[in-house]
Amino acid sequence: MKQSKLFTKTSKTLPKDEVSLNSQLLLKSGFIDKEIAGAYSFLPLGHRVLNKIINIIREEMNAIDGQEIMLTALQAPATWEPTDRWDDEKMDVWFKTELKNGNQLGLAPTHEEPLTKLMKKFINSYKDLPVFAYQFQTKFRNETRAKSGILRTREFIMKDLYSFGRNQQDLDEYYERAKAAYVKIFDRLGLGKITYVTFASGGTFCKFSHEFQTLCEYGEDLIYINEEKKIAINREIFTDDIISEFGLKREDFVEKKSIEVGNIFKLGTKFSDALGLHYVAENGERFPVVMGSYGIGPARTMGTIVETCNDEKGIIWPKNIAPYHVHIISLGKEDTIAAESEKLYNLLCANNVETLWDDRPNVNPGAKFADSDLIGCPIRITVSSKNLENKQYEVKRRAGGNAEFIPQENILAFLANELK
Amino acid sequence: MKQSKLFTKTSKTLPKDEVSLNSQLLLKSGFIDKEIAGAYSFLPLGHRVLNKIINIIREEMNAIDGQEIMLTALQAPATWEPTDRWDDEKMDVWFKTELKNGNQLGLAPTHEEPLTKLMKKFINSYKDLPVFAYQFQTKFRNETRAKSGILRTREFIMKDLYSFGRNQQDLDEYYERAKAAYVKIFDRLGLGKITYVTFASGGTFCKFSHEFQTLCEYGEDLIYINEEKKIAINREIFTDDIISEFGLKREDFVEKKSIEVGNIFKLGTKFSDALGLHYVAENGERFPVVMGSYGIGPARTMGTIVETCNDEKGIIWPKNIAPYHVHIISLGKEDTIAAESEKLYNLLCANNVETLWDDRPNVNPGAKFADSDLIGCPIRITVSSKNLENKQYEVKRRAGGNAEFIPQENILAFLANELK
Repeated sequence: MKQSKLFTKTSKTLPKDEVSLNSQLLLKSGFIDKEIAGAYSFLPLGHRVLNKIINIIREEMNAIDGQEIMLTALQAPATWEPTDRWDDEKMDVWFKTELKNGNQLGLAPTHEEPLTKLMKKFINSYKDLPVFAYQFQTKFRNETRAKSGILRTREFIMKDLYSFGRNQQDLDEYYERAKAAYVKIFDRLGLGKITYVTFASGGTFCKFSHEFQTLCEYGEDLIYINEEKKIAINREIFTDDIISEFGLKREDFVEKKSIEVGNIFKLGTKFSDALGLHYVAENGERFPVVMGSYGIGPARTMGTIVETCNDEKGIIWPKNIAPYHVHIISLGKEDTIAAESEKLYNLLCANNVETLWDDRPNVNPGAKFADSDLIGCPIRITVSSKNLENKQYEVKRRAGGNAEFIPQENILAFLANELK
Repeated sequence: MKQSKLFTKTSKTLPKDEVSLNSQLLLKSGFIDKEIAGAYSFLPLGHRVLNKIINIIREEMNAIDGQEIMLTALQAPATWEPTDRWDDEKMDVWFKTELKNGNQLGLAPTHEEPLTKLMKKFINSYKDLPVFAYQFQTKFRNETRAKSGILRTREFIMKDLYSFGRNQQDLDEYYERAKAAYVKIFDRLGLGKITYVTFASGGTFCKFSHEFQTLCEYGEDLIYINEEKKIAINREIFTDDIISEFGLKREDFVEKKSIEVGNIFKLGTKFSDALGLHYVAENGERFPVVMGSYGIGPARTMGTIVETCNDEKGIIWPKNIAPYHVHIISLGKEDTIAAESEKLYNLLCANNVETLWDDRPNVNPGAKFADSDLIGCPIRITVSSKNLENKQYEVKRRAGGNAEFIPQENILAFLANELK
């Protein structure tokens, strides 16, 4: 992409009330735009990042036999009445609206009820189980406050996976597969080292659920970590009783702030009982289907990456999800600079190196470097007269370290090694 | 995909009130599910088709320099008041809702206003133009009736592209590029031969807009076609005055029913005037930005393909958007059948032939063939004892013709030729 064609620009001014670091950096760099409090548009660079996160999650969902679907946001009351969650007291984040004939509708904040209802059409026998279905779908939640940028919004794409099994063993087995897939996802997203599988409250059907908590000094959550035993516990269940179950004491844990980037949950038969999702076993008996749910918010994950991967100059994208791998900076207005930059740009594009090229003729070097740091692509390549004379490029990693001078003929090999 | 693992099943019963052919076929084959009237979920097979349509459109949007973004569904009144379209009388398809503090919100039925507002942040000078931005985003429209299956729904993904130029010439040039891209899209989707670029009403700023109308006997629209001059005119402007402008007479046209699958529209300065989107020209003067809009509904397109590509047995998917290229049918319960089928399945998958394998052991051949016809993959390969004895596969095209017997060692070459 030639930066002269990219319609977004970086900015120094921010909308009022924008207090979170993630939205400040993403707004300044032109990745997102604020439509209303708690609802952000994704602009070209931001859309690329979000899509890369989605694709990594999708690959791992397919790898654990997830079947991709897309349910509707619009929902009728009848679907939610069996669990009593149509009631605004029970589910306090509904946006409600209505058809022209006056019939009430709601915008789904989650999808256990409609998917359980849907599965009644397809699950009859033990032979139909297990089933795993997931979606990337826009959820709506009428949050009272929306001050955390893209970490907690009123409209967001959610990856929600649901498992349907015959019994507790089916659920337990899949739960472990999903947990391993989540570990892999956060590794691939560059958050692996600071993301903890954290024990959290389990609800009705099991003692614990698991949250994936990423350490972050601005996080809303508080977790307690024992590094030696690799145990993390959410504040909500960090009680003496629970601690002792792990054979540890309160002082064996370190308190850390964190952001919840994923959550896996054994639902048991809560929804299948309420909505009547049963199957006939080999012996002819009828049993409720045993369910699990597994969620990741791609935009929340993106926000968490921004909160944890930055410096005073801007964002530092992990290579797997950077909007572009390489940012070429052309310095100087000479024709040879433009021509040599274009040659490099075409070479990289032809070799599948995703490249943003700052080809803007009337922007000074300082502004170009500042933009490049703010946008945060992993590798910056500077094309200047001096470097061209020496038949080399000046290369700098956004993550830090000194500039290196790479002979022109070695640039592809250098990048292949950096980006592998 | 092994069919035994696919969670959907074909069905003979339909929800009440399902009168459109597209939804009848898609519901019976398990591609979609009806959540409420006018809102359908996409199940694994349907989601694959929808995604393929989206990806073809995306490639062609990128090829005409579209930059992909994603705006929000949630909208505040202030964005829409400058054009007076917040008013339910002026825009009669709003779903309205509200925040907990009582502030009104709406669910965007289209995005001219928010995108024009957004562009005010980035467009200042003639150097910033032209700009082309598009999205695949879920629109909500409070339609009074919803009886056309996935052709007209209350919630649907829309591809909407908007162009922003300096003047009429910029607009006219891009309009022609977009028109050519649309022709290419409908060609790639298998609708090229029956889709007409049709003159339609142009609104305030130009005489005509263009619709892409696909001939279909159940279509809601009526168009008039002159094959010789390759002219099609929508009923709404099929007047003597207009006809004479083309140097033709009423009797030179044939009346046909059709479905509108795309629409391109010169907006001119309607929205930039109302919302104050101006730029400074080279001579220092300020001008309003000249806009165009270009829409395709991927699900409506999918519905149109179903309406036009089917027979009494089911759907006949064009190869570019079929859920799978090949449907393998294993006949008989012998171990060798299962083993040989699996060998073939693995061979095809390894060679990027997307394959659905009907591996279900307890389903009779008649039901398997009926399912295969209903689901509609382009190529069916039958694995049976008799064929295996002769070291061949029985191959049949869904579109018609007799079965062919292909020597096993030639199957990849045969498929490469069929699917190219």
